[in-house]
Amino acid sequence: MTIDQYLPPKRTIMTPGPVEADPRVLRAMSSPILGQFDPAFTSMMNEVMESLRKVFRTNNHWAFPIDGTSRSGLEAVLCSIIQPGDKVFIPIFGRFGQLLTEIAERYGAEIHTLECEWGQVFDPQDVINEIENVKPKIVAAVHGETSTGCMQPLKEIGKACRNMNILFVVDAVATIGGTEVNVDEWFIDAAIGGTQKCLSVPSGMAPITYNERIEEVVNARKKVERGIATSDDNKTKGNQPPITSNYFDLSQLQDYWSPRRLNHHTEATSMLYALHEGIRIVLEEGLEYRFYRHQQHEQALKTGVESMGLAIYVNHQWKLPVVTCVEIPEGINADGVRQMMLNQFGVEIASSFGPLHGKIWRIGTMGYSCRKENVLFVLTALEASLSYYGADIKKGRAMQAALTFYTSEETAKERG
Amino acid sequence: MTIDQYLPPKRTIMTPGPVEADPRVLRAMSSPILGQFDPAFTSMMNEVMESLRKVFRTNNHWAFPIDGTSRSGLEAVLCSIIQPGDKVFIPIFGRFGQLLTEIAERYGAEIHTLECEWGQVFDPQDVINEIENVKPKIVAAVHGETSTGCMQPLKEIGKACRNMNILFVVDAVATIGGTEVNVDEWFIDAAIGGTQKCLSVPSGMAPITYNERIEEVVNARKKVERGIATSDDNKTKGNQPPITSNYFDLSQLQDYWSPRRLNHHTEATSMLYALHEGIRIVLEEGLEYRFYRHQQHEQALKTGVESMGLAIYVNHQWKLPVVTCVEIPEGINADGVRQMMLNQFGVEIASSFGPLHGKIWRIGTMGYSCRKENVLFVLTALEASLSYYGADIKKGRAMQAALTFYTSEETAKERG
Repeated sequence: MTIDQYLPPKRTIMTPGPVEADPRVLRAMSSPILGQFDPAFTSMMNEVMESLRKVFRTNNHWAFPIDGTSRSGLEAVLCSIIQPGDKVFIPIFGRFGQLLTEIAERYGAEIHTLECEWGQVFDPQDVINEIENVKPKIVAAVHGETSTGCMQPLKEIGKACRNMNILFVVDAVATIGGTEVNVDEWFIDAAIGGTQKCLSVPSGMAPITYNERIEEVVNARKKVERGIATSDDNKTKGNQPPITSNYFDLSQLQDYWSPRRLNHHTEATSMLYALHEGIRIVLEEGLEYRFYRHQQHEQALKTGVESMGLAIYVNHQWKLPVVTCVEIPEGINADGVRQMMLNQFGVEIASSFGPLHGKIWRIGTMGYSCRKENVLFVLTALEASLSYYGADIKKGRAMQAALTFYTSEETAKERG
Repeated sequence: MTIDQYLPPKRTIMTPGPVEADPRVLRAMSSPILGQFDPAFTSMMNEVMESLRKVFRTNNHWAFPIDGTSRSGLEAVLCSIIQPGDKVFIPIFGRFGQLLTEIAERYGAEIHTLECEWGQVFDPQDVINEIENVKPKIVAAVHGETSTGCMQPLKEIGKACRNMNILFVVDAVATIGGTEVNVDEWFIDAAIGGTQKCLSVPSGMAPITYNERIEEVVNARKKVERGIATSDDNKTKGNQPPITSNYFDLSQLQDYWSPRRLNHHTEATSMLYALHEGIRIVLEEGLEYRFYRHQQHEQALKTGVESMGLAIYVNHQWKLPVVTCVEIPEGINADGVRQMMLNQFGVEIASSFGPLHGKIWRIGTMGYSCRKENVLFVLTALEASLSYYGADIKKGRAMQAALTFYTSEETAKERG
């Protein structure tokens, strides 16, 4: 049996992830392999830690990737701190809040939730009141909900958790590198980022960071593997039951990501090259400018969409700036439109989950995909495909609105 | 803060992994990203499944990668079938047998082991006798132990397990693509392969395969996530407790790797390109020829090492053909030699674990690293570095022995 070499088509990816990887990231991945204990490799591992701290805006010592997709980072943090019976409180405002409950409950947590209508976020005080009632060990919350296009304000919740000595874990998968994620300022004890969204690195790694409050819980469960443990390791074994997952055991990963370099997994060489290059590019662009750039293209996209006469599903103060949800006009073949965009234009946008499936499309403006030509092209493809399917939209306006936005921004900048 | 672009040095990697990736694999990784539900991507996912079956020599329906390093594959299989209190029997002949106990016991297994001296393998009948005593639910065994350079014969054990209706799980991380791994013929119920060894794909994915016997156990624990479950899913929920890990839940991964494409993780796009290309190359070369090629270079390496007057640590019938362990001459600075090889020649070989640390070096001949020039170069670097450190070896013979081996093989082939 022989199969052909695979040559993927070139797409314009305007979903909430995975999005287009920066070409420099793709190039970095074609570098030759290094051994995991080669000093040329371990020094690069240290650079990844150092630059991840900047991206998370933290002074935490621990900042490294889990070798898996984003949810592997969520699971690594949660399973390393949850013991059976621990109370975990999760405010849910979309599908990824539900995912946090799924992960936590499997590791034996006693789950408490607060839900709000999809498309809304919580008043932080409502969350804090409920936390005071429940008195959990851990609060786990999503920052940017790509399923609804909302972003939860976190600082007040973080501060309240710190005051109550509760661990605050944040899913920043969708927001890291695209909008502010201020780990230390917001009193976040552990944060999990995603690579394939605003960092524009392929899926397959989950950068995390956490502070001494988390480390203390993790160290109490430390156990070094048979076959590599020394007699010293047996003496310093934690007094709590070990973490159930071996792969996600942060106490072992700490030994791997520290000068001891104690063998655990074999670090995913090429993916780490990609992450190194991806965060290098983020820092080169500068976080503030990068957030500004994301906002600009979001504005251009929104202007174009609204000029067609379409409604933006979430358009309040807490709209997630990197995802724009568009209400599907009534009676329109939503999948037909998306398929036409993909098959004729090579442009991908996303449908949605659960109660929002068939009600909204989700358009991402993330990382390297968040560029002028991509915004103009997704508007073109959307308008043309909607027209083809007979939608009653205002034709010919979206492109002019977006162009006017871009050119006036550029004029202002030139004058500025 | 800005950091520089990372440019890894070019190494000759002769360790038991990670080894050099095939340049075509590195190139495949620089292809542009596709969305995970793009038909151009999902059709490639199906090709990966189809070609993995060939590599594992199985008719199993399920054959797909776990998005993580090799041990993520071990954990995915074990945690999906082990329930607390289940008896798991593990014959241990090196560090990676111990790893299987580490993973299984964390998920609550009652562990039973049989150990033999490092550097030896088991007489299958001894293992079978012990299995008959223990009557476990699962037998988990390593095929190729890179820590000792041994390979355990598995077929008789597999047959006995099948007769006793015991699940037989095999760690084929080190052997897949380099020497025979006959999943169906050896009655293996689940096998886990590694990418970064004989497949010459970077670390970061773990291809697995399993049959209906495993699937039945997995399906009994099936639970579809809130936020994406339909009312039908709630009806067909398994009657056993769900799998503790969400990320490694094979029942969810099945839904993702089936036409339903139910959202779980975001498939690691570039790594899957790499795996697709890596197994394409394996099938293009042909498994039989590939195994032969691995044996040839192993012979050349052994001939060279022995010509220097060094002893091969494991040289019996069950030597692992893709790893050659060399005894470190007494009184020699073992780390100094390895460092000189790396720093002066850019050639990497490995030390070892536990009782063998400081006693042996391990030299891999795996995948793309298993080439004539690499074997000649590792012999050169080893001889020169040993000489530099004052070892009493026979100089100038290794290269001639290896050259004689290669040229006589070539002459025989031409005549052939």
